[in-house]
Amino acid sequence: MKDCIFCKIIKKEVPAYIVYENEFVLAILAKDMEVYGHTLVIPKQHYKDIFDIETHVLKKIISVVKKLSIQYKKNISATGINIFNASGTDAQQSVFHFHIHILPRFSNDGLDTRPTNHTQQKYDKSLMLKKICGQNV
Amino acid sequence: MKDCIFCKIIKKEVPAYIVYENEFVLAILAKDMEVYGHTLVIPKQHYKDIFDIETHVLKKIISVVKKLSIQYKKNISATGINIFNASGTDAQQSVFHFHIHILPRFSNDGLDTRPTNHTQQKYDKSLMLKKICGQNV
Repeated sequence: MKDCIFCKIIKKEVPAYIVYENEFVLAILAKDMEVYGHTLVIPKQHYKDIFDIETHVLKKIISVVKKLSIQYKKNISATGINIFNASGTDAQQSVFHFHIHILPRFSNDGLDTRPTNHTQQKYDKSLMLKKICGQNV
Repeated sequence: MKDCIFCKIIKKEVPAYIVYENEFVLAILAKDMEVYGHTLVIPKQHYKDIFDIETHVLKKIISVVKKLSIQYKKNISATGINIFNASGTDAQQSVFHFHIHILPRFSNDGLDTRPTNHTQQKYDKSLMLKKICGQNV
């Protein structure tokens, strides 16, 4: 897609540090690194978000995420991995080409990936479940 | 696995709010909700983390994550979705049975899912890439 930075990287019009590449998937080092080895796994075809991406492509992406997780354990001694995706402006998505973050983790790496919630709301889960399942409530 | 809370939920020995279930996957409302509709997608077989889970099962999990994302957009008017996994103690994993969090997002929901990093380190990405690719450096 025109003006999409990830599409430009995929077409090799913009340079990036390429960690892995196959027919469907590209994995690159993140421009702004949250932690050592922070990687973005990206479909070569342009999909905006989780709502938009085709399931068979998503499966290829998650296979690469797993493959790289094991590679990071072996090659850069990661002792943990966080996997993260943001889909939609309200989910704090910044680049609107679907991507999964891999955050290799290390003892005392200074990172906190737990979400921050200032609301601390209580919910009626029975009612919530009915709404999720599409029952009129 | 004995003493695993998710295995107990899967065996219906412990109650939970079940959002979705198939032969391989169970999705339940999170016990501690970060946001309205916070859901955990869990393989029925016990795998500890991303390093451990079989790829074909992971693909089934991510298919359910996508399916539910669309369902949450439709049924509870989510305007975004965050997907999250923690694998390993150093990645802040709390239950050691692989699971993916779905965090439905809404305008002004008070949640911040961006990681917090207190280190702000700069890295040599060329060197990093060599290490990731298993080259002796």
